[in-house]
Amino acid sequence: MTGTLTAPDTALADLRGRIDTLDAILVHTLAERFRQTDRVGRIKAAHALPALDRDREEAQMARLERLAAEAGLDPALAREILGLIVDRVKDNHRKLSGDQ
Amino acid sequence: MTGTLTAPDTALADLRGRIDTLDAILVHTLAERFRQTDRVGRIKAAHALPALDRDREEAQMARLERLAAEAGLDPALAREILGLIVDRVKDNHRKLSGDQ
Repeated sequence: MTGTLTAPDTALADLRGRIDTLDAILVHTLAERFRQTDRVGRIKAAHALPALDRDREEAQMARLERLAAEAGLDPALAREILGLIVDRVKDNHRKLSGDQ
Repeated sequence: MTGTLTAPDTALADLRGRIDTLDAILVHTLAERFRQTDRVGRIKAAHALPALDRDREEAQMARLERLAAEAGLDPALAREILGLIVDRVKDNHRKLSGDQ
């Protein structure tokens, strides 16, 4: 089958370049997301609001699964990844509020 | 302390809108990343190339940790999140190559 497509090394190098770009977008978007959630945590701490908000969290997860399905991403994987992120946010908010 | 800052509800609603936008970027970037890695998997399968490439994977992880540190994101969290993604990609590539 070799030769019937673009030389695989060239095609793979091109795709890997695209994947590296997408990874940079992911890293910078995640960093920005933590900057914004840190602001949320500081406002909650300043106003003695609860560090956690289960209704907001459930609405976020439901929205994320819908967006994932629309984008062609496995919603269960999207939930798993956001779960890691939200767990870290919750730890940060608890620290800011002095709950632990 | 209430009243010394912007009304917290307004500020929180603004920040949550920003976070929702960032989540949409994350979902669409992830979906696009899986589309590109599926193309990688199909090229590898068509040319009977190995489904896995440990050198590429290690280089990706090292680059990601460097990008994360530059962006102010915990590199260990970045590695954990990319680990979930790469594990899924490896499963997909093995299926495409008929290794399982």
